[in-house]
Amino acid sequence: MAAAALANQVEVLAFDIFGTVADWHGSIVREMRERHPQVDGDAFARAWRAGYKPAMARVASGQLGWTLIDDLHRMILDDILPRFGLAHLGGEEREDLNKVWHRLDPWPDSVAGLERLKRRYILCTLSNGNIGLLTRMAKRAGLPWDCVLSAEVFRAYKPDPATYLGVAKVFDVEPGQVMLVAAHHEDLEGARRCGLRTAYIERPLEFGAAQPKDVSARPANDLHCTSLADLADQLGLG
Amino acid sequence: MAAAALANQVEVLAFDIFGTVADWHGSIVREMRERHPQVDGDAFARAWRAGYKPAMARVASGQLGWTLIDDLHRMILDDILPRFGLAHLGGEEREDLNKVWHRLDPWPDSVAGLERLKRRYILCTLSNGNIGLLTRMAKRAGLPWDCVLSAEVFRAYKPDPATYLGVAKVFDVEPGQVMLVAAHHEDLEGARRCGLRTAYIERPLEFGAAQPKDVSARPANDLHCTSLADLADQLGLG
Repeated sequence: MAAAALANQVEVLAFDIFGTVADWHGSIVREMRERHPQVDGDAFARAWRAGYKPAMARVASGQLGWTLIDDLHRMILDDILPRFGLAHLGGEEREDLNKVWHRLDPWPDSVAGLERLKRRYILCTLSNGNIGLLTRMAKRAGLPWDCVLSAEVFRAYKPDPATYLGVAKVFDVEPGQVMLVAAHHEDLEGARRCGLRTAYIERPLEFGAAQPKDVSARPANDLHCTSLADLADQLGLG
Repeated sequence: MAAAALANQVEVLAFDIFGTVADWHGSIVREMRERHPQVDGDAFARAWRAGYKPAMARVASGQLGWTLIDDLHRMILDDILPRFGLAHLGGEEREDLNKVWHRLDPWPDSVAGLERLKRRYILCTLSNGNIGLLTRMAKRAGLPWDCVLSAEVFRAYKPDPATYLGVAKVFDVEPGQVMLVAAHHEDLEGARRCGLRTAYIERPLEFGAAQPKDVSARPANDLHCTSLADLADQLGLG
């Protein structure tokens, strides 16, 4: 579909957050440098994030009941702390560190890009992060969401179709009037299977400079963008 | 509790919308004047709203399954149209008129008041309106919510405790750290029973100038305010 037709068809832009809008790796490295400078923050951030998909899988399979990301992050944190010589951290310190996910910094282009996109589209989050986490992150970072949607609303984690179709249902539009914006092909594929439009965002440094990510284009996506500013450009926004 | 202590204890302000933040009566009168000037818009607006509580009650009792406000508004609309000589309206016209609830104007003090309150508090909606309705209303009117919460998220209508306690749960705070802001005593009473703080907002013209509302203070509320600007004043915001 031509870019102009696509820009007119879409009414809602739904954004993945961790890695797409927010720089989880850089933010965790920053906090670890302040709190525990003796720890390899780069490895720590990647270890924490690496526990994410297995934790999701345990919920999806029913092995674990419905659990908010805040609690999953804490379970993973408790699991990795000994490996980084931090087994001695007390409950309050752990809880506070766990909240780093509420304090993630946006990528440098995120706020300005979203502000341009907001002029024409309804902007919502569609993240596995819980509502409280997403709201506090947005308030701190100045992310101008029209609406905070989350796996918590649909009680299902992406890539469950209930999440993608849930966005269309909430706004009473066809799936093709919703575009998922994400830096992860698996997420975009899940959305596409439900009839949503998709925009891939290059985030080559998502896992840090030591582990650059393959961000080459895949033709299945409607748009391939280097940033949210580029997405706004491609959708014809001034 | 002294105002300053209260201002510090509260972290989240949850707002009722219809009548408290938005002027449903004036907005419906305005649209009816444009669309159907022969109809008594004042009586029409009140008739439409009068169907609201009975419709809620049917859902609460289980007589009607879970139904979004958009659909309840449409059922009531279909019911009242003949009484106002509008039985001839087609499906598309009815659907478009029904969406007036997405286009409600805020009270004149709402946007500026919320912007002041947003500097210190997390601002969320807590309305029986559905998420899509609340989001579109906010986007059109410029209401700066941090988060759109709704009966739709909790699958229960106010004054069900699941809604008030749901806000505290979403933000992982004690009920006493949430304050409900509303122009309706029944709503505030429901919140108070769950341990929330309460602020009453005077909206004497909620039902139009022909039917002024008793807005006298009741001592059970923590705060009694003439407007959202007054609420910001009382909470010590500049």
